[in-house]
Order: sequence, then C-alpha cells, then structure tokens
Amino acid sequence: MARFALGVSYQGDAFCGWQRQAEVPSVQFTLEQALSKIALNPITTLAAGRTDKGVHAVGQVVTFSTPVQRPLEAWVKGVNTWLPPTIRVHWAKEVHERFDARRHALWRQYRYVLYPSPIPPAIYRKGVTWTYRSVNVEAMHRAAQLWLGEHDFSAFRGAGCQAKHARRNLMAFNISYSEPVVVFSVKANAFLLHMVRNFVGTLLKIGYGEAPIEWALDVLHSQDRKLAGVTAPPNGLYLYRVGYPDELNFPHGPHEKWALPCIINDRA
Amino acid sequence: MARFALGVSYQGDAFCGWQRQAEVPSVQFTLEQALSKIALNPITTLAAGRTDKGVHAVGQVVTFSTPVQRPLEAWVKGVNTWLPPTIRVHWAKEVHERFDARRHALWRQYRYVLYPSPIPPAIYRKGVTWTYRSVNVEAMHRAAQLWLGEHDFSAFRGAGCQAKHARRNLMAFNISYSEPVVVFSVKANAFLLHMVRNFVGTLLKIGYGEAPIEWALDVLHSQDRKLAGVTAPPNGLYLYRVGYPDELNFPHGPHEKWALPCIINDRA
Repeated sequence: MARFALGVSYQGDAFCGWQRQAEVPSVQFTLEQALSKIALNPITTLAAGRTDKGVHAVGQVVTFSTPVQRPLEAWVKGVNTWLPPTIRVHWAKEVHERFDARRHALWRQYRYVLYPSPIPPAIYRKGVTWTYRSVNVEAMHRAAQLWLGEHDFSAFRGAGCQAKHARRNLMAFNISYSEPVVVFSVKANAFLLHMVRNFVGTLLKIGYGEAPIEWALDVLHSQDRKLAGVTAPPNGLYLYRVGYPDELNFPHGPHEKWALPCIINDRA
Repeated sequence: MARFALGVSYQGDAFCGWQRQAEVPSVQFTLEQALSKIALNPITTLAAGRTDKGVHAVGQVVTFSTPVQRPLEAWVKGVNTWLPPTIRVHWAKEVHERFDARRHALWRQYRYVLYPSPIPPAIYRKGVTWTYRSVNVEAMHRAAQLWLGEHDFSAFRGAGCQAKHARRNLMAFNISYSEPVVVFSVKANAFLLHMVRNFVGTLLKIGYGEAPIEWALDVLHSQDRKLAGVTAPPNGLYLYRVGYPDELNFPHGPHEKWALPCIINDRA
C-alpha cells in the first residue's frame, strides 16, 4: 500500500460539506469517486478539516491509501479531469504509511470574510458574509485577543460536536479591515464544530456595539453556548491553511490564491 | 414623466448578457420586470454598456422614465427586493428628461482579470479567466500603449457589431500584476463589440511570447479582424466604471467593490 497527501480546494456552496452523507453531494464522496476512477479501485479519504456545508477551502489536506502504482501527476491532473470544476487537486505527495492528515496537523488556519456595505453583493455572494451594519474592527480585534491560549471553548462549541473535550489552543486571532472587507484570521491547534462561526457571531455583537469588549471573556469563562453570539453564516468562511511538521515538506501556503486576493497577505 | 439613473452591478454568468432577448434571461429584462413591479407600469431601460453573455458589471449605469412618483429609496431597496440576488441596484438619482446613459457617457472603463496558474480555480471560477501558461505582463503593457489615442479599431471589432464606424479614442490601457492575478484596465470613450476581449486575446499572444510587441501595431493598422488574436473568454471581464459630466454628480467609483478586492486600486 502507498499513501498520499493531496492539497485540495473547493467552493463550499456546491456541496453539503466535506463529510460523506447519503443522498447529498459531499466533497469527500465526490473526491473519492474521482480518485477511484484513477485507481480503478475504491478509495476512501480523510481530511485535515471537516468543513461544514457552504464553507470553502483553499488549503485542505487530504490523505488516502492505495495498492495501485500511478505516476504522481495522475493524482493531480488525472483526478482533476474526473472532478467537477468546483473541486481542484493542486498537489500530491507520497507520505509514510501511518500519516494521518487530521492527527498529524499541528494547526489549522481559517479566514472569515465579512463585507459591510449598505447593499449586498451581486457577484460571488456565496463567498462572503454580508452585513448592512458598520462594524468596529478594532473592538473585535481586542476582544479576540482575550481568547488566546489554551482554554475550554465549550461556549463556542456547536451542538452535535463529537470531540472528546473542548480544550483547544488558540494560537492567533487577527481581525483587520482590508478594503472593502473585514478579514478574521484565526489559528488554533484544532477547532470544535462551528467554533470559528461562533467566534465571529460573538465578535460581531461587540463590533456592532451591542456588548463591551470584556464580554468576550465572560462568554469564554461561562463555558455556556447560550451566552455566545449566533453562529455566523458559512458563506465567508475559508479553510485557509493546515500546518504540518516541516520534515513532511508539504507545499507552503494556501493552494489556491485567486479566491482570496484580498486576504492572501499574512495576518496570523 | 420623471427620469432616473441607477447604479447597477450583476454577476454576468447568470444571464445571456445585458440586452433583452426572447426566451433567455437577460439583465435588462430582469431589471425591467423588477422596476415595473415598483412602478405598477411597464418600464423600459437603457444602459451605458451592453455587456455580453458572461460579462460582469460593478459600475453599470441604467436610465428609465416613469410617470409615477415614488420615494427615491423605492428605486433602490424596493427594486432590490424584486431582483434575483445576482443583480443589485446601488443608487438612484433623478436626472433631466433628456438624459441618456449611453450618449452622455464620456468614457467607459473595463477591467479584465487573468489568473495564470498551473491549476484552474475551484472557487468563483466564472469571475476570472484562467490560463495555465505564464505571461509576460511588461510586454503586454508596452504593446497596449501602442494603441492609445484615436484610431480605427476595425481589427478588434466583433462580427455583428452595429456601430456606425470603428473610430474610438483609447484613453488608457494599463496592465499589471496584482498577486495572484493580472489585471487589464482599459478606458475609452466607447467600445466596439468584443473590443476588450479582442484586445486581451491579441495581447495574450504577445504575453505568451508568440508575437513581438510591435505586432500590436501591425494588427491595429491592418484594420483586419483576422489578424488579431482570438476573442478572450468573458469570465474575467467587468464593466468597472462609466464617466459622466461632473455636474450630474453621480456617485463616484465602482458601485460594488467586493468582487474586485484585488483590482479596486486606481490603475487608469
């Protein structure tokens, strides 16, 4: 058996999310079908981040094993010919047989793109979260700093989250205005279900002036999901990058940069 | 009768182009239907630029007349409630009764977005033109300068163009790399059918190293469409801005900035 890692991007609104589900088109199922066409054998995959319905990825990392031998290019260009245009494989690399894209990831980085404007966007509206209200970016940034470090993030954990515990290490959280959008860039060792979207929903209450900056700390300490803000919509959320040990020598940075010209500069 | 100008944006791949056609959804027909809902009367419109199928607009200007009186906001927020989310009205302004969005425009500005990358984009791929080849941006920019000024642009005129003559004043043409895309920004008093896409197709031959810079001048002087490059695809093309006399006091700049975060800085 040989084992491979793939760098994958996808437009989230075309799928029910990463995870295979009966009856609805998932990224995982669609990618496995294409890989199986190349392998002429059923292939199952595992991803670094199980993105939800509507969430995009420009830096997803996926692994699979196969008994067949193919030139490395077959796992990129060959697979791409069998995929719908809303999923692309950007690179493939052989990895050791116990490599696990989820467990071996050192950190994940997500970016959330908010477009504050009186009128919603007509163009690529599934790629951004629109708000007609203006937001205080500085207040949100300062609030987010209060969450840094290792904490129990139960207050930001979506119902149905299957993680054993809610302790996570929040490594960076930067929020900045990059005309015309506000970009939330967040990095942690791992994320709970809906954690980024619950962070954003909570910060927006502060950004709208409905809660003071210190309220962010009250919510964290409460460990009570009911205290935090609503779950922000998936539109603006991108799985941006996943970090692995250097010795794996994976290509650096988001695999696909076009979707994010406003946010490719390093923020976290 | 009162007459109004509207600032409009739309995602071009959802429509057969600006112009009303039987059986296929055009931006014009869709907008007229929504305006008529507000007016409770049939409304016909006229646009500054008749964009083709697949071409986007962030700075389209549209005019119409109506006998009914409505608060100005009704022509923005009211109309938007009747429009599909791929078309948005951004502003409305009352204009004098002989105002003509096409004839009174002093200039039009288009931007064309090219994404050179080994792998095509998965995300918002209808908003960019992808090429797997690398391009010489400097050579294309220098070639484009040879076309500046008033000329007969027959060599870049699409078949079926209804203009009386092919003389146009090319006022600016800047091409620059704005990671990860190449942006063509072109401004002229008016454009012929497919003129921008034929410009881009011709410049790409130079950018790919298939023709020298001076060839751009040969093509122009030939006045022969067969000599120029192929018509570049519509995906990457945006009607960016239309210029009017200052006294009209129209809102400045593209109405919608989200779609173009990589290209909103002034280039031409």
